[in-house]
Amino acid sequence: MGKGITYPLGFYASGINCGIKSNGKEDLSLIYSISFCIASGTFTTNQFKSYSVLWCIKNIKNDIRAVLINSGNANACNGKENWDLTVRLIEELALKLKIDKNSILFASTGIIGERLPYEKIINGFDRLIENLSSENNILAAKGIMTTDTFPKEYEINTGIIGRKKEVFIGGMAKGAGMINPNMATMLCFITTDAVIDKKALDIALKEAVDESFNMITVDNDTSTNDTVIILANGLARNKTIHIDSPEFEIFCNSLKKLCIELAKKIASDGEGASKFIEVNVNGGWCKKDVRKVAKKVCGSSLVKTAISGANPNWGRIVAAIGSTNARIDIKNVEIKICGITVFRGEPVEYDKEKLIKLMKNKEIKIEIDLKRGNFSATAYGCDLTEGYVRINKEYS
Amino acid sequence: MGKGITYPLGFYASGINCGIKSNGKEDLSLIYSISFCIASGTFTTNQFKSYSVLWCIKNIKNDIRAVLINSGNANACNGKENWDLTVRLIEELALKLKIDKNSILFASTGIIGERLPYEKIINGFDRLIENLSSENNILAAKGIMTTDTFPKEYEINTGIIGRKKEVFIGGMAKGAGMINPNMATMLCFITTDAVIDKKALDIALKEAVDESFNMITVDNDTSTNDTVIILANGLARNKTIHIDSPEFEIFCNSLKKLCIELAKKIASDGEGASKFIEVNVNGGWCKKDVRKVAKKVCGSSLVKTAISGANPNWGRIVAAIGSTNARIDIKNVEIKICGITVFRGEPVEYDKEKLIKLMKNKEIKIEIDLKRGNFSATAYGCDLTEGYVRINKEYS
Repeated sequence: MGKGITYPLGFYASGINCGIKSNGKEDLSLIYSISFCIASGTFTTNQFKSYSVLWCIKNIKNDIRAVLINSGNANACNGKENWDLTVRLIEELALKLKIDKNSILFASTGIIGERLPYEKIINGFDRLIENLSSENNILAAKGIMTTDTFPKEYEINTGIIGRKKEVFIGGMAKGAGMINPNMATMLCFITTDAVIDKKALDIALKEAVDESFNMITVDNDTSTNDTVIILANGLARNKTIHIDSPEFEIFCNSLKKLCIELAKKIASDGEGASKFIEVNVNGGWCKKDVRKVAKKVCGSSLVKTAISGANPNWGRIVAAIGSTNARIDIKNVEIKICGITVFRGEPVEYDKEKLIKLMKNKEIKIEIDLKRGNFSATAYGCDLTEGYVRINKEYS
Repeated sequence: MGKGITYPLGFYASGINCGIKSNGKEDLSLIYSISFCIASGTFTTNQFKSYSVLWCIKNIKNDIRAVLINSGNANACNGKENWDLTVRLIEELALKLKIDKNSILFASTGIIGERLPYEKIINGFDRLIENLSSENNILAAKGIMTTDTFPKEYEINTGIIGRKKEVFIGGMAKGAGMINPNMATMLCFITTDAVIDKKALDIALKEAVDESFNMITVDNDTSTNDTVIILANGLARNKTIHIDSPEFEIFCNSLKKLCIELAKKIASDGEGASKFIEVNVNGGWCKKDVRKVAKKVCGSSLVKTAISGANPNWGRIVAAIGSTNARIDIKNVEIKICGITVFRGEPVEYDKEKLIKLMKNKEIKIEIDLKRGNFSATAYGCDLTEGYVRINKEYS
């Protein structure tokens, strides 16, 4: 069992049921740092942002001590009075934790358009705080789940030496909505005991998110609540990491690795998914082209259903590539499925029986070479099954 | 029973089985005009275009006498030798029809990456030509079907008076792939006996396609074969329609009406669909904004599954609207489902039982008012069901 967000020094976590989920499962989580953190965050681009996201955007620049998260209610599009409830909720928690209200962040995930269950959450605060522990990372990871089938945690030792200890990074995420967040929302909370300046932290997070969560294919919908937050409390006492420090790249790579691992867990837990899909695109003219092609192929309903049925219908991959405006060398584009070349400008003879057998595996890799340059990108996704439709028909 | 493409004067149609479909159903169609036509077409934007589409692009500027269409084989991404087969095929048909090969257009739909069944098609030509008749429009409409569950035809009398007769327009279309063309392809063939100049015909077609076929939501994939062609043989002997003739608007409106009706038939025959969805967006700042919002909502997997389950989860509609960059008045955006207002900047009290009952109907209308201007657009689609996944898992 990993340590997730409590892996770095000085972070405590808690998760309880406060009554939003009627089945008794965890629905309220808290991350707490024993000292102030600098913070960075990326938030949904949806024009309808939840009140929780609006609260975060307002306060992310402050020194942060805690993050409160509820599941089961999105706190979005539910009317102006819920902004007041949000503020009162945070004030109440600030009182209990004896910290400034502006040092608390807040995230929500669940159904849109329903009143924030203010009373239930408030009534849970005592138990929530009582439960804070460096062992309760798993409860916190459970408290942010909605249709997820397993909690998602990861932790990494950057190897950067500090006066007190090596710099660690830990994280937890939720989202079973890779196919498209089921109002669902992608949430990720990352902790680190690194000493790092704000600008370096912002850049490191943005780059890591671009290569990970932003490369999970999301068919159509962008949640009103998507949130990624990183907190750095500096307890490792390393030399401050600036963007020109030699350690900056090491930190960035570790953070990227952590985000990719969490992103893959989200993709593999896609609603109704039976398979995990990875699409590598090489030979691109520019970064934008390879990202576009990777996401298009990985997000194509036809490719996803073909993979669900272990159906080597590579024509759908070709069509998805061609439907983008990426620069490609049509006559030489190469496509491999599970390591077998099926197309190189024209159809290629291949062992169909063998490929069908390989496509029955749980993890499917598609490799595409655009033959136009040196850029690469990878997208992560899952197949599209009857189960996805069932889940989304009934969810409410 | 309508007359479809044989409604205008001087057009004959035919449809036979030449052996591409092993179940004996029609798989080869021919449209023939007794006199030369000017033609206009819009073709797939996919970078991998079928050889049939490439042939059309090369010849659409010519005077046209006939259109050959096969189903069951896409003639796309199947290797260079298939270009030669395409040319030989057309040459053979030209000989039989005693017309110039450059006056024949060609369209294909079906599986990508397989050799054009040249011999089967050639061997069908005698029967195909023998069957040409002004009564066989329905057979031609069947010959272009793939996963379609019914043939799609429409015809309209424009009311424009000609020396010989009133100007008629007829059409047939295929595509059960509104959800996203199942390599499927959207094909539409339109005939008219109008006298109209080339420029006016081009503009009329482009406008009609923009408001109809381009407003059917296509999740992800653009086929390698999408084709819309209109032929005008001038037999009505009306005064030539130019873009500044008073009749131009009448012609445009009739053509638009015909295309919208055919587009709706495609949408309602969406793979696995149980319901037809229409999304009206009003109050937009510009044309682009309303089109974007209409297509986003209509194409959202979450909205589609909600509708499939008669689930009034309007939060998904809000999220889809907000995920676009259209200019909207967040505080006042209004949403109606089946005529019932569910959202006006915030949740609105409504009769949920009544709405659920209404959502069990076969046709669902969503109305959105962005409250930012005077532009409107309508998108057409269908729900997303387990049946869609099943069809696309197995298709090959």
